[in-house]
Amino acid sequence: MKRSIEDTSIVFIGAGNLATNLAVSLYKKGFRLVQVYSRTEESARMLAQAVEASYTTNISEVAADAQLYVVSLKDDAFLELLPRLVEGREKGLWVHTAGSISVNVWQRHAQRFGVFYPMQTFSKACLVDFHEIPIFVESNSEADTQFLKDIASALSTRVYECTSEERQSLHLAAVFACNFTNHMYALASRLLTKYNLPFEVMLPLIDETARKVHTMNPQAAQTGPAVRYDRQIIDKHLAMLADEPEMQQIYCLLSESIHKYS
Amino acid sequence: MKRSIEDTSIVFIGAGNLATNLAVSLYKKGFRLVQVYSRTEESARMLAQAVEASYTTNISEVAADAQLYVVSLKDDAFLELLPRLVEGREKGLWVHTAGSISVNVWQRHAQRFGVFYPMQTFSKACLVDFHEIPIFVESNSEADTQFLKDIASALSTRVYECTSEERQSLHLAAVFACNFTNHMYALASRLLTKYNLPFEVMLPLIDETARKVHTMNPQAAQTGPAVRYDRQIIDKHLAMLADEPEMQQIYCLLSESIHKYS
Repeated sequence: MKRSIEDTSIVFIGAGNLATNLAVSLYKKGFRLVQVYSRTEESARMLAQAVEASYTTNISEVAADAQLYVVSLKDDAFLELLPRLVEGREKGLWVHTAGSISVNVWQRHAQRFGVFYPMQTFSKACLVDFHEIPIFVESNSEADTQFLKDIASALSTRVYECTSEERQSLHLAAVFACNFTNHMYALASRLLTKYNLPFEVMLPLIDETARKVHTMNPQAAQTGPAVRYDRQIIDKHLAMLADEPEMQQIYCLLSESIHKYS
Repeated sequence: MKRSIEDTSIVFIGAGNLATNLAVSLYKKGFRLVQVYSRTEESARMLAQAVEASYTTNISEVAADAQLYVVSLKDDAFLELLPRLVEGREKGLWVHTAGSISVNVWQRHAQRFGVFYPMQTFSKACLVDFHEIPIFVESNSEADTQFLKDIASALSTRVYECTSEERQSLHLAAVFACNFTNHMYALASRLLTKYNLPFEVMLPLIDETARKVHTMNPQAAQTGPAVRYDRQIIDKHLAMLADEPEMQQIYCLLSESIHKYS
């Protein structure tokens, strides 16, 4: 009897935001999550319970017979653990989920290795649907690349093979499109709190700003004082930020940048 | 026979992004748009045609008997035209749509005046539904404030009375939440173009980043290298931006700011 892709036995190394979202999504699609490792016992237990797996906080107890090991750790923790991770578990396929780490990091450690990078912002408190999330895969063999594509395709309709260099470029762009964008929301929220105004009032504007770039390119979509180079408003805003020198500096730099690219 | 609010005769002074979106929305709700003024004949004609109104490029030809005049011009153009706008048309209610200009700008010019500020990013090419757009109104009389609220309520479920000071604070926060956010998309797009990658691949991430702050506060929603203060990735990204000194500066400043607020 032919085994289906969902029978793949999977171990998660790491139980953070990305690991939690990915493991739960795989579990919901019927994949067999066998074990979760995390240095933090509570994180390990929480995720293991959610996906009906066992858990450990001890690297030496990580199962040796899994078919797929998904390593989703902070970059520095990953590089530190790497030498001890694969030893004795060389039959499995080892993938990391980092946007910024080359696939070559596995060289000299693993025999079968790759990358499984879902490009999204993940929080444990806010589990996402993977259906439209782009997943970028890469590995050191054609067979394993196909294997990773099959797994990714069980989760998402947007599965791409890409090189480490392309992935690193995507990750840098994602920092702008996601992390820096979210920080703009955070700074708006900070101002509104100061003025006793509710952040909720910004949501239609935030949604429309995101919606617009589905049909217009962001440069064409730009509005507001900086793109019009309305010096009167810009100066008034800088004066309003007089007690927030850092926000003032951000306001200046971004307004100049908008004006320059417009 | 009692007249309904939609019978209000309205003149638009200005035919830009905001004026176009607001006029078309009022028209669709059955309001009577009588005339459009713009210095640019094509803009005046385009909007006038869309809302079945007449148009002019000559201030002296602006109708004298309208009940409501909506002035939606760039701030400097508004302040320049202001002395000639109201003269001979004092019976009407005059409102501007600017986030950053005090209601007091009308003093010594108009007898009945106010502000009608829909807080949204508007493009002519992308007409929006006003239903959820917050509209902030203000005027120099209770009766006219109620009149503006009634008009706003015909368009949107989110109508608020607010002071000029509050409106200016909202506008400053909106520059962060919208214009600066859109610029982050533009910078991401610029990087992707450089790397021959399609911008579309960012859309699920952009959407999720916006969606998350509906249920989490932006500070709690933050992810990525800056909030983890992952120095290895930050340094790699700065090296990748070596030929884009301005983006490098933005990357540094925003990463520090994220780290500081986290």
